[in-house]
Amino acid sequence: MRSNGRSSHQLRPMNLTVNVNKYAEGSVFIEMGDTKVLCTATVDEKVPPFLKGQGKGWVTAEYSMLPRATQSRNQREAARGKLSGRTMEIQRLIGRALRSVVNLQALGERTITLDCDVIQADGGTRTTSITGSFVAMAIAINKIAQQHKLPVFPITDFLASVSVGVVGEEPLLDLNYEEDSKAKVDMNLVMTGSGAFVELQGTGEESPFTRQELDELLKLGEQGIRELITKQKEALGPIALMIGSGQAGREA
Amino acid sequence: MRSNGRSSHQLRPMNLTVNVNKYAEGSVFIEMGDTKVLCTATVDEKVPPFLKGQGKGWVTAEYSMLPRATQSRNQREAARGKLSGRTMEIQRLIGRALRSVVNLQALGERTITLDCDVIQADGGTRTTSITGSFVAMAIAINKIAQQHKLPVFPITDFLASVSVGVVGEEPLLDLNYEEDSKAKVDMNLVMTGSGAFVELQGTGEESPFTRQELDELLKLGEQGIRELITKQKEALGPIALMIGSGQAGREA
Amino acid sequence: MRSNGRSSHQLRPMNLTVNVNKYAEGSVFIEMGDTKVLCTATVDEKVPPFLKGQGKGWVTAEYSMLPRATQSRNQREAARGKLSGRTMEIQRLIGRALRSVVNLQALGERTITLDCDVIQADGGTRTTSITGSFVAMAIAINKIAQQHKLPVFPITDFLASVSVGVVGEEPLLDLNYEEDSKAKVDMNLVMTGSGAFVELQGTGEESPFTRQELDELLKLGEQGIRELITKQKEALGPIALMIGSGQAGREA
Amino acid sequence: MRSNGRSSHQLRPMNLTVNVNKYAEGSVFIEMGDTKVLCTATVDEKVPPFLKGQGKGWVTAEYSMLPRATQSRNQREAARGKLSGRTMEIQRLIGRALRSVVNLQALGERTITLDCDVIQADGGTRTTSITGSFVAMAIAINKIAQQHKLPVFPITDFLASVSVGVVGEEPLLDLNYEEDSKAKVDMNLVMTGSGAFVELQGTGEESPFTRQELDELLKLGEQGIRELITKQKEALGPIALMIGSGQAGREA
Amino acid sequence: MRSNGRSSHQLRPMNLTVNVNKYAEGSVFIEMGDTKVLCTATVDEKVPPFLKGQGKGWVTAEYSMLPRATQSRNQREAARGKLSGRTMEIQRLIGRALRSVVNLQALGERTITLDCDVIQADGGTRTTSITGSFVAMAIAINKIAQQHKLPVFPITDFLASVSVGVVGEEPLLDLNYEEDSKAKVDMNLVMTGSGAFVELQGTGEESPFTRQELDELLKLGEQGIRELITKQKEALGPIALMIGSGQAGREA
Amino acid sequence: MRSNGRSSHQLRPMNLTVNVNKYAEGSVFIEMGDTKVLCTATVDEKVPPFLKGQGKGWVTAEYSMLPRATQSRNQREAARGKLSGRTMEIQRLIGRALRSVVNLQALGERTITLDCDVIQADGGTRTTSITGSFVAMAIAINKIAQQHKLPVFPITDFLASVSVGVVGEEPLLDLNYEEDSKAKVDMNLVMTGSGAFVELQGTGEESPFTRQELDELLKLGEQGIRELITKQKEALGPIALMIGSGQAGREA
Repeated sequence: MRSNGRSSHQLRPMNLTVNVNKYAEGSVFIEMGDTKVLCTATVDEKVPPFLKGQGKGWVTAEYSMLPRATQSRNQREAARGKLSGRTMEIQRLIGRALRSVVNLQALGERTITLDCDVIQADGGTRTTSITGSFVAMAIAINKIAQQHKLPVFPITDFLASVSVGVVGEEPLLDLNYEEDSKAKVDMNLVMTGSGAFVELQGTGEESPFTRQELDELLKLGEQGIRELITKQKEALGPIALMIGSGQAGREA
Repeated sequence: MRSNGRSSHQLRPMNLTVNVNKYAEGSVFIEMGDTKVLCTATVDEKVPPFLKGQGKGWVTAEYSMLPRATQSRNQREAARGKLSGRTMEIQRLIGRALRSVVNLQALGERTITLDCDVIQADGGTRTTSITGSFVAMAIAINKIAQQHKLPVFPITDFLASVSVGVVGEEPLLDLNYEEDSKAKVDMNLVMTGSGAFVELQGTGEESPFTRQELDELLKLGEQGIRELITKQKEALGPIALMIGSGQAGREA
Repeated sequence: MRSNGRSSHQLRPMNLTVNVNKYAEGSVFIEMGDTKVLCTATVDEKVPPFLKGQGKGWVTAEYSMLPRATQSRNQREAARGKLSGRTMEIQRLIGRALRSVVNLQALGERTITLDCDVIQADGGTRTTSITGSFVAMAIAINKIAQQHKLPVFPITDFLASVSVGVVGEEPLLDLNYEEDSKAKVDMNLVMTGSGAFVELQGTGEESPFTRQELDELLKLGEQGIRELITKQKEALGPIALMIGSGQAGREA
Repeated sequence: MRSNGRSSHQLRPMNLTVNVNKYAEGSVFIEMGDTKVLCTATVDEKVPPFLKGQGKGWVTAEYSMLPRATQSRNQREAARGKLSGRTMEIQRLIGRALRSVVNLQALGERTITLDCDVIQADGGTRTTSITGSFVAMAIAINKIAQQHKLPVFPITDFLASVSVGVVGEEPLLDLNYEEDSKAKVDMNLVMTGSGAFVELQGTGEESPFTRQELDELLKLGEQGIRELITKQKEALGPIALMIGSGQAGREA
Repeated sequence: MRSNGRSSHQLRPMNLTVNVNKYAEGSVFIEMGDTKVLCTATVDEKVPPFLKGQGKGWVTAEYSMLPRATQSRNQREAARGKLSGRTMEIQRLIGRALRSVVNLQALGERTITLDCDVIQADGGTRTTSITGSFVAMAIAINKIAQQHKLPVFPITDFLASVSVGVVGEEPLLDLNYEEDSKAKVDMNLVMTGSGAFVELQGTGEESPFTRQELDELLKLGEQGIRELITKQKEALGPIALMIGSGQAGREA
Repeated sequence: MRSNGRSSHQLRPMNLTVNVNKYAEGSVFIEMGDTKVLCTATVDEKVPPFLKGQGKGWVTAEYSMLPRATQSRNQREAARGKLSGRTMEIQRLIGRALRSVVNLQALGERTITLDCDVIQADGGTRTTSITGSFVAMAIAINKIAQQHKLPVFPITDFLASVSVGVVGEEPLLDLNYEEDSKAKVDMNLVMTGSGAFVELQGTGEESPFTRQELDELLKLGEQGIRELITKQKEALGPIALMIGSGQAGREA
């Protein structure tokens, strides 16, 4: 039996609170059980040097944990003077994942920066950051769409992320920290509303995994993603209708 | 007239929510108007090298702003690879202020680290951090006192901090960001429950200030500090009784 | 048609030259087409601090590209003063992959450091580094096994890595740089001699991929890995027999 | 009794030697007892990016200690690769203080950089740096005024700085290192020739201080500042007459 | 007797393999005994900021050792986050030496960057880097000369470098690592094809050296340089004829 | 004619002022014309890790220029966060040179750190630093010798350094900045009291130099060194007699 009486294919209790920040163009506070992440989306009317003059936009992400997000305090990366490999890997993943559902041409020469700050961590901080960031980004892009004539709404599909893993012999959905640290296989999935894969990262450091285990994990993950996207739609309300609609960017 | 109809000697609406973090020994979420800071206190059963073997404890602080705590996004110090002078100055101030009301001998060879993470900023983030950190520290030290036989409760007095300044010709209490950016004189006060000064930092970069202005600002600040300490007492409940009590550390 | 007349399921010409370095405990120069990597394995009779006193060993990796390994010169990370996110991600992957087939207990308190220096790059440098490093590591561990009484030979299985991807609509094995830059789906596989997965990293930044595409790519990759492991066995000669043998570490 | 037989309200022996550097636009070697600081002022015909095109100038400062300025050798910040919090705090203070008496509009688009290098330290290095830098700056600005038609001489008032503190129960003026390390209250004052406050930084880390102590310290400091400004006038000679004169910048 | 039966005035076996890199404008793999360096020359159609608009070119160099180029593994400078003093000294030397035989005016506004990566080290890595870099540079500059109308071929003379030293009482040419570590005097010479000195760096850390010892070492070095230049000519083939020819840059 | 009417073989006016620093074990302020360097020697009763337990001492040096030591202000290396290659090259040279005349065994497990801070620069700062540091070191080592029983006085010979160069066609001794920047050949010599070479660094970046030019420069330099050592002896007074005396370390 999992903690809180969860079944193997059950997500943790999830809350999405939108517009929690006074200044950001989009913001979401996402809670998956005891994992809590503040996601803010900032719109910048310019693009990085490598994209200048191409008429395309950019989506990027930064990720950080507060020092006491974890059981024991971890040193600030600002104090150490550099980002850890783990942080860089995660923020590259978040940015890549979000870009896969954004029509950068339709966005125009703008950059959306997603800041994912982990307030409390209990496993799955990178997947939770992706799921929350998607919502913050949609709110911010909707604001652009209401102010500027865009050819089409730039978000082409929904996007969410969840972890799956094998603990003991059992495949589990949405691992918390305790489960994650016992897992022999650990996989993060990022999928779209239409059920396609955007990222698939499985690792069997403790023990290589078989094709059959892979298939079971993918099935669990697909179901979890569907549930997460349902929650995203509720949180976004009318903005959800714009996503993948092919409508012109200006709502009214 | 100030925004929200505040009078010149009125604090902003203030909330102190205690125990907001699952892992930290002490934690507080403090809101002064739109300024919001998460303060966590971490207890470490060791001291920095320069104190080893002296039987004394240490209290230190770190301060950081989330990138979108402000109107426009500010770059992470972790990404820049170093702390700004402003951040270092603030965290040195917070640590120094808190140590002034802690009997380090009574604390024993332990370090309390206060992490002040500004979730949203609207002026007065350093003073708010001190006021909130004091409460988080008190909760953490009370936990130590309940687990270990201490000779005496290590916190000797209450401590709070507030800003005052001259805007136009008028002395104001507890400046928000807009007021702060127009102020010709800006002063931060840290005071104890018994009304003594711990830190006094006044600056008249725009325009030097007279002795009479100084006296008026000190009066405003003293009154604000008294009100803040009343709120701290409410938030701490029975722990408040231990502070400065001279009682043995173990509560019951 | 692919360059060099390769079919979609054909590896590039591959060479493994062993013992190319006078000083290293194990060394391999691996060429996959125009991708050339020098892999050296260094044995250190100690472990990182987090493992001290546990009687276990460690395997870690570092990865770097020479400045002119690529079409246009890239700045040295030593000159920039920090490792890029890409480099950190790759060296974490190499280390994690190799550890999955090493019995760290049997290795004893020793660290094996694999240095993968890309002399020339034409796609697939991370997968080539893993395939080459495995051989360098086996040579180095065999040297330990000949000098020390180990309870059992510490390498439990073969390990190789290859990339697969979808270019146009066609799934391809072992992408070179030109193919990689046109691929809409890109996947790196690390698998063992027994056909299990160690790492699976698929990304569809340009375009999400379906379950059917995933299945085809996995099939291509599995076949490629088998061929790579055959080459590793040839290069290792008698040492190959020790891998996964369960024999005592001392050969004779 | 203080060392050297000083009374509680007596400054240390003070020397100001002007024009000690062959290249700098302004330079002063200032000695307050055994504290010795070389202050050079550099004029740059441009301003930092945030001021460009506003027709205003800028004044900034850098501060450093030679390794053997102190009893035991301290490591160079250049060797450590970063400035300490203390250094940043001090150089921010010096720049802020000097700017308070400069009409940046009248200065035009120029930057004055004050370099304060502590050759030998015996307490009060930051206050001595401010007092000396003011003189170096006045010499440099006078050079500008002689070469360019300025609307008005850009320095509006004199400026000096001194420390005061409570040692034992006694308020003392201008603490040396030994006194400073025993002080329970420590305060740095920066004041203008007209007796207004520019910076007031008091700290009672060891023991909070009362309003009465504050008043006594301010009185001591005011008197010390007056004496320092008298010395500055002597050192500056005819340039002193330009300060706060409202005369056109060109002397003759 | 020296290792390999070398006499005191004999160079180690030397190989120069040209065009070893697919991408670089010039490349050489140079072996002097067990010292092996990969030298690549990159042509950039721009110059550093300090040379802009002067119609002159620049030649610069970077030097690095692979971690296991040496007996025991040395940490990567990229991992340490900064270049060592030794590395900076060596790359400054290589650049300075090469520039002495290049007519920068004739080169035009182009930068040649020489990357010297030591694959294996056995003494004399800096001198070997210079000798090899000269050849890589000549190949790269010849490529420019074939594509652009240059007023004259920009390389004015041959250039090579060798070490000499006193071991025991005997002056030796071209020291390997073992000899170098026993040498009481150590000298690196860089000379031109016409027998003039470009760099002369002698050091007697262990024991100062006399004028007579200096004269003997210079004689040994001059002879070694002549032999090295003969090898460079063979490796360069027809390009060798352009060097110092005063001919127009375009070959045909 | 050289500035100040110097002849080609004449040193600039030179002053050595000893014991200028209150705290350092040895200190010298050396002036060679307008080049002014403060040299302090610090004695530490321990050695770097690589020498621990060998009963030997160490001598090392650090070098820095004040920002306004030069015509135009140069940025602090502490602000840039790293030492330049030039600085590292110079401080390695100073340390190496001084060690050549110190019997490290006789020094015992102590480190002497020479700090050379250039107060004003007009050419020859590295050679002036060596000449001055030698004197500061001798004073510091004499202090050790007076306090501890040393087997023999650890300094074996005098040591000084000077620059020579070819300007136009004329060989000159002790170049100032203006001459140095016009020199086609530039050479730094470090020699002992007995006339042996410790370091010889000649560079002909602008134009390679002949054997005959080398011989003339060496002759000029030898003469300059003799004069410098005469000055060192005067400055050291009775301590000069200990150098190279072979006497027991304790003076009386």
